[in-house]
Amino acid sequence: MVDTGKVVNKVAVVMAGGRGTRFWPRSRGHRPKQFLAMVGESTLLNQTVDRLGADFPPEKVYVVTTQELAAETRRMLPTLPPENVIVEPEGRNTAPCLALALVTIERQHPDSVMVVLSADHWITNHDAFLGDIDLAAHHAYQTHDLVTFGIRPAYPETGYGYIETSGQGMVLSVKAFREKPPLATAIEYVQSGQHYWNAGMFVWTLADMRRELLENCPEVLVPLDAWVAAGADSKAISAAYSALPKLSIDYALMEKSKHVAVVPTSFGWSDVGSWPAVVEFHEPDADGNVVVGEAVLVDSSNCAIFGGRRMIATSGLQDVIVVDEEDALLICHRDKAQGVKDIVERLQKLGRTDLL
Amino acid sequence: MVDTGKVVNKVAVVMAGGRGTRFWPRSRGHRPKQFLAMVGESTLLNQTVDRLGADFPPEKVYVVTTQELAAETRRMLPTLPPENVIVEPEGRNTAPCLALALVTIERQHPDSVMVVLSADHWITNHDAFLGDIDLAAHHAYQTHDLVTFGIRPAYPETGYGYIETSGQGMVLSVKAFREKPPLATAIEYVQSGQHYWNAGMFVWTLADMRRELLENCPEVLVPLDAWVAAGADSKAISAAYSALPKLSIDYALMEKSKHVAVVPTSFGWSDVGSWPAVVEFHEPDADGNVVVGEAVLVDSSNCAIFGGRRMIATSGLQDVIVVDEEDALLICHRDKAQGVKDIVERLQKLGRTDLL
Repeated sequence: MVDTGKVVNKVAVVMAGGRGTRFWPRSRGHRPKQFLAMVGESTLLNQTVDRLGADFPPEKVYVVTTQELAAETRRMLPTLPPENVIVEPEGRNTAPCLALALVTIERQHPDSVMVVLSADHWITNHDAFLGDIDLAAHHAYQTHDLVTFGIRPAYPETGYGYIETSGQGMVLSVKAFREKPPLATAIEYVQSGQHYWNAGMFVWTLADMRRELLENCPEVLVPLDAWVAAGADSKAISAAYSALPKLSIDYALMEKSKHVAVVPTSFGWSDVGSWPAVVEFHEPDADGNVVVGEAVLVDSSNCAIFGGRRMIATSGLQDVIVVDEEDALLICHRDKAQGVKDIVERLQKLGRTDLL
Repeated sequence: MVDTGKVVNKVAVVMAGGRGTRFWPRSRGHRPKQFLAMVGESTLLNQTVDRLGADFPPEKVYVVTTQELAAETRRMLPTLPPENVIVEPEGRNTAPCLALALVTIERQHPDSVMVVLSADHWITNHDAFLGDIDLAAHHAYQTHDLVTFGIRPAYPETGYGYIETSGQGMVLSVKAFREKPPLATAIEYVQSGQHYWNAGMFVWTLADMRRELLENCPEVLVPLDAWVAAGADSKAISAAYSALPKLSIDYALMEKSKHVAVVPTSFGWSDVGSWPAVVEFHEPDADGNVVVGEAVLVDSSNCAIFGGRRMIATSGLQDVIVVDEEDALLICHRDKAQGVKDIVERLQKLGRTDLL
């Protein structure tokens, strides 16, 4: 049993460099998903920081984002010390992102536990969330495990990685990380009771993260250590950073480490990964339609209208999602939301960066 | 056989008072279908007047429209004498409209044949069109028949009235006017070879029209005659006009008269009656999609995009028509275009006259 009475020095690292092309045309390069109030009243980024509450005073909350998004991120989080917005010269996946956070935070809060969160997830039951973090932080502090959160799967999602666990209780052992499964396998995972969604949220001490990175993936840390040793000049970071391999923290660290534990979560979670996921956050009318803005729906059912800019009228539509923006309009079958990625790629090929 | 060598004094009457709610959101109260370039390069109204060509000099072309549309109609037809735009105080269906044209034209071209046309139809093969008019005009002049044009049905349309004919040749006798039929009946009509679509285009002498109106439906003519006898003051027309019954010329005259003939047409015709009809005027791509404006269509087929205002992107759509306007957007299944009428009614009930 983990002793949660002990005071553990926690810092939060919010990864906020994502582009979120799946929410085109609402999300854009300069206005990614975390900057949008996709669900709830405020942006996902603000919700993420706000829900850390009193457990994480502003000086212990770090947000990592790209150069392009840094100014707006600071503007959106006025209570955070500006230097707590850590700027990646470019997005190189989560392993470099978190290694940069490590070398930055080591100098400011050396003896602490890092809580890694995503800026664009939806979480309910904040007390449970903070309780789970506390449990994970104490476990990490006492056992030197790398702790990941496991979400009990609500349905056989084929778009997430799974963690196969063993044992019972508040903290589980990891048998294996499983890649995005085909549907039949996902159904087995859900039925097993031992598989959890890998939500990409982690808890570990800075020292353990350093030790494990050097052991399992030194190439993402050594160049940054050299940059720090040379004075950590912010102008010199680009060269050091561009040398880092583009790896996820799951691949670089979690799947390789022998010291990983899972805390099954007791809070509600969604990665709000697509327009149909956003639709689920709205109460439909008797015909299954969701309308944001002004719309007249005739002979239409199970549709979702994200408008607000003009009158949107439909006739004879089923299972269609509409997203209306000033310069672009998306009309998408509910089961074909993955096509939004293809649309974005086509626009890129057409050179329509003005729309991306 | 009609002798077409004789010179007949023809005047054209273009009925241009229609509202065209079936083309919402492109058509509006102040911008009805005839004012739009729905098909072709110019507006349907301009095309209608232009195709009369040299056969109808401007002083012999009359356009009847409502007070609301008169100024714009005159602006769109600068070669017409302004007084040739006959103004109905209000729309009261086609019988009052044409009776008003009759009493107006009688004073200016007393011994002439009236050719009644619609402002919002599409016609191909203009030589054939003018030839058919000439034939009908000579027939009307010589026989005192009321002549209507019959379109050989291309398919069993259930939205049109039919004319059942007998005889053979260039001019046919009428057995009966048939109302919009159910599909099975429409199929029989098409197969019979004796049924024609009633396209609402007529040819008659002024004198015959007067005689037949007084015989079959005096209530649409007598109040107008009284108005003319009192000086034909343009300010007094409203009172006279509002007393007229709202009747179609088909009901008031054609179905009652015993002197009706049909000229089967040799020109191509469409009433461009709905968005799906407009789609038919465009060459689809390999996936059956029609795009006007900028669009990216992923995994979509048999769709039509009438855009031009912003990028329109679709994913996984089949058989959907999109019409994008500044203040309103229509998304309509191809088989549910009749729902546009319901949308307009709903907007009316919502008090959104700004969109109508």
